Amino acid sequence: MRRPEELRAAVEEYLGSLALATELGGLEDAVRYALDPGGKRIRPMLCLAVTEAAGGGIEEALPAAAAVELVHTFSLVHDDLPALDDDAERRGRPSVHVAFDEAVAVLAGDALLAEALRLALSYDDPGIARELIGATLGMIGGQFRDVTGDDADLAEVERLKTGRLFAAAVGLGLRVARVPEAEQGTWRAFGDELGLLFQVVDDVLDGDGFVRRLGVEGARALAAESAGRTRDRLAAISADTSVLRALVEELAGRTE
Amino acid sequence: MRRPEELRAAVEEYLGSLALATELGGLEDAVRYALDPGGKRIRPMLCLAVTEAAGGGIEEALPAAAAVELVHTFSLVHDDLPALDDDAERRGRPSVHVAFDEAVAVLAGDALLAEALRLALSYDDPGIARELIGATLGMIGGQFRDVTGDDADLAEVERLKTGRLFAAAVGLGLRVARVPEAEQGTWRAFGDELGLLFQVVDDVLDGDGFVRRLGVEGARALAAESAGRTRDRLAAISADTSVLRALVEELAGRTE
Repeated sequence: MRRPEELRAAVEEYLGSLALATELGGLEDAVRYALDPGGKRIRPMLCLAVTEAAGGGIEEALPAAAAVELVHTFSLVHDDLPALDDDAERRGRPSVHVAFDEAVAVLAGDALLAEALRLALSYDDPGIARELIGATLGMIGGQFRDVTGDDADLAEVERLKTGRLFAAAVGLGLRVARVPEAEQGTWRAFGDELGLLFQVVDDVLDGDGFVRRLGVEGARALAAESAGRTRDRLAAISADTSVLRALVEELAGRTE
Repeated sequence: MRRPEELRAAVEEYLGSLALATELGGLEDAVRYALDPGGKRIRPMLCLAVTEAAGGGIEEALPAAAAVELVHTFSLVHDDLPALDDDAERRGRPSVHVAFDEAVAVLAGDALLAEALRLALSYDDPGIARELIGATLGMIGGQFRDVTGDDADLAEVERLKTGRLFAAAVGLGLRVARVPEAEQGTWRAFGDELGLLFQVVDDVLDGDGFVRRLGVEGARALAAESAGRTRDRLAAISADTSVLRALVEELAGRTE
């Protein structure tokens, strides 16, 4: 079993040497800029860790793991646009629309989504691409609710915006490891809760989302409950989940 | 063999009753607005006509044909954005970013691309989604060259922006009809030339692209040459291509 840092290194190496469609031409620069190191790579690490815990091989899982990260990156590039969240910085660097321009950022986001699907479609099993596209549609729906202020049901918005892609990271790992659907339930329940945990911790760090609804103490309490449920769900899985446990603790305890 | 108008009606009916992912929520309005009748539906009609000429069934081809139209519509919604072509109208109606707003237009374009892939992934054959995503990446690369003025090789830009999706419409029709790859060459050569013909006629009507490079007369001459080659390539296909011939004449002779 590889440690989290080894998984992160495998993700970085794979993304760094990823061959993009040659027809993208000069747009490749903006796509690579968006994908540059600096991200936490939580989603692809989760995908790899699930694959390995479920008895599959990391090498086979790397395209799926990268596909999840590309969908995540696509969403960040479009979310940062002036018409959406209008964020000029991302991970301490100018966002894509600032480093390049808005037109290039729109197209770079489009290319990231398309490349993600190309990676997912490199498998014989079309279920991998199907699961990824379903999660992507949910994520876009969550972003729409967020942008338009249609967020009365905050838990649902965050389940869509964040949870769907976390769940897909787990689901893709299970598919790569060829875990029969009948045995996927406990794993998927873990993934759903982990997505919530990630989002609540994120909100506590950023002071928004659940913090605005529940106050800081309320959000911290929710994070603690969710961390407990995540550990319980992980314990219910019949496999060596030690690396996943380390990932959970990293997420639960993060301070940035 | 169904006539072009019957194919167009089949496309409209299918698109009109298309079930979108429920998680898109209120974003569905903008997606449906973008897909509303008014488009020429050339690409999906081409896909259906190829399927039928190659011995396949229209019903089975409709999701693939619709997927091609959704990719085309996604590209229009993003191209119309202020940061790109800044077109306030499309088909005589306000563009999506005017009818809704820019944020919704970005997300509606994203959703159209994702829904297109979902449709393409409804087939057992993952080759259908693979061909569509390859064409989409080429189209995005063409749009990048167009937006950034990296269009020294105009024929290449137009092959990417327009030709790739025309070629995919033909390719998807062949795949749905299960035409062996070894027998696809003549069909694909026809699709490539038809994409060029469409684009040159479009440029003549709009007074841009090839008209700016070759002058009106030069572009008209190129259109006539391309129409001749398209007919020749169609004649080289061993099948009843009468409906495709009618489509070619419709495209070659269009005045709007």
